[in-house]
Amino acid sequence: MADEKQHQFRYTEYWQGRTGLTFAVEDILFSERSDYQQVQVLETDAFGRLMLLDGLVMLTEHDEFVYHEMIAHPALCLLDGDAPRRVLVVGGGDGGTVREVLRHEHVGHVDLVEIDGLVLEASRRFFPTVASALDDDRLTIHVADGVAFVNNAEAGSYDLILVDSTDPVGFAEGLFGEAFYRACARALTARGLLVTQAESPFDPAFHGLIAEAHGVLDRLFAEVHLYLAYVPTYPMGLWSFLIASKALHPLSDFDTAHAAAQLAPFAEALRYYNTDIHRAAFALPTFARRLFAQD
Amino acid sequence: MADEKQHQFRYTEYWQGRTGLTFAVEDILFSERSDYQQVQVLETDAFGRLMLLDGLVMLTEHDEFVYHEMIAHPALCLLDGDAPRRVLVVGGGDGGTVREVLRHEHVGHVDLVEIDGLVLEASRRFFPTVASALDDDRLTIHVADGVAFVNNAEAGSYDLILVDSTDPVGFAEGLFGEAFYRACARALTARGLLVTQAESPFDPAFHGLIAEAHGVLDRLFAEVHLYLAYVPTYPMGLWSFLIASKALHPLSDFDTAHAAAQLAPFAEALRYYNTDIHRAAFALPTFARRLFAQD
Repeated sequence: MADEKQHQFRYTEYWQGRTGLTFAVEDILFSERSDYQQVQVLETDAFGRLMLLDGLVMLTEHDEFVYHEMIAHPALCLLDGDAPRRVLVVGGGDGGTVREVLRHEHVGHVDLVEIDGLVLEASRRFFPTVASALDDDRLTIHVADGVAFVNNAEAGSYDLILVDSTDPVGFAEGLFGEAFYRACARALTARGLLVTQAESPFDPAFHGLIAEAHGVLDRLFAEVHLYLAYVPTYPMGLWSFLIASKALHPLSDFDTAHAAAQLAPFAEALRYYNTDIHRAAFALPTFARRLFAQD
Repeated sequence: MADEKQHQFRYTEYWQGRTGLTFAVEDILFSERSDYQQVQVLETDAFGRLMLLDGLVMLTEHDEFVYHEMIAHPALCLLDGDAPRRVLVVGGGDGGTVREVLRHEHVGHVDLVEIDGLVLEASRRFFPTVASALDDDRLTIHVADGVAFVNNAEAGSYDLILVDSTDPVGFAEGLFGEAFYRACARALTARGLLVTQAESPFDPAFHGLIAEAHGVLDRLFAEVHLYLAYVPTYPMGLWSFLIASKALHPLSDFDTAHAAAQLAPFAEALRYYNTDIHRAAFALPTFARRLFAQD
């Protein structure tokens, strides 16, 4: 009997050279070009549905929880006090990041600024568990340019800014530059936090970017730290985030009991983040430490 | 101009279904069948040389340091006292694990028991930086079956046993069973440690194996803990190890100053492990915690 799987489509995202992750594609569910990028949704054999933006893996159903929990909860659990939080998410039109943010009861309002309405549309249609919070009353969606939005934001108007961007090429490049980070610093409160995805420290191609972003943030914020999470379908599997704060140190100001109390109402929904992972995520392998003098 | 790279060979190790990591293959350097398995060495475009055993990635030049440092140093840094150590490495014929073990000055003797002489030969020939310690005076190489070797070992004769095995199929299956773990417990000193690679907790196919090995070890040892490391070229990128001890807790008995002093003579050679990583490696993502009641 012939193996029908032999006849499947395959899709490979090349990480370095022509080495990268190959997915068996059961079906191509969606493929459209927006003003910004090609948006595609594939049904894969091992990771459920997969969203590609210009051929790069944005998320899969099976492992999106890692990235979305890890961009949101470390900073949200670090914010002190009990006042309602104002959060800005730049990018992240799939809705996964705001889903995690809105789990926190103390979050009073979230602005989601996604440049590409087609990403929102594709996520609502094909990733209902990811887009599940896009209709939350506390959320305002802006289909707009993130850089301009932050430039126009009132000073001190956000407790937290999460930069959930694509790779730093094309229209997303501005989200990794000094002018943007400076505007973020201005838009944040005195105890505010900025988190940005920072590619893979295992990929030499991104060492310069990570070191440069770290250096720029260092000039604008008192505390800048890299932290890590495993995302199997992202290049090299090891992903990094930069967290920057004018006041809070992500470890010494992390109150485990306060964080555990914040997480308790939705602890069952979490699959990656916990208070031990919070501390562990900031421990860098020696090769990553050597990217900058962070000890 | 034609892109010459279009004409490269590719090799994919399928992780789940037909999803997995694809390597561009510049050259096939070695391909021979031993009594046990097919041993192949490929030159890849992004990870340097790659050793395949029966088509599964054993190591690449560019990321082998992660696995080899993380199977060896957590346990070696945990062993207390200053007496010369006796270490047994089961499997690991490439030499990477003994290279890391032999960096420690207090290691007095190492027995390396590799069933397949062809792995030793291929590593010496194609991975000189991995096989670099195979001629160390403190090392005895036994081309023999690991299960039989441990069964015949004198009781209480090793301070540390490292099980650096291939996947639990075929001839390596015995290295994951209760009889083998029981023989290891017998061969260890009263404060001895056992470490075994335990596949990826991100792959549902291995959840049963990890939980079962954990359960068996729990009946034989006072302390059993899972810890994690990122290995980009291993399935799912996230790899686990089980550490078992009759006496030592891998965190509460971990003396940072003692460990740092042990590592100091070769700190420059390490690219992954450090004392912060030691502690962080034991923090499990929530999904991994749920594999067993480890809290």
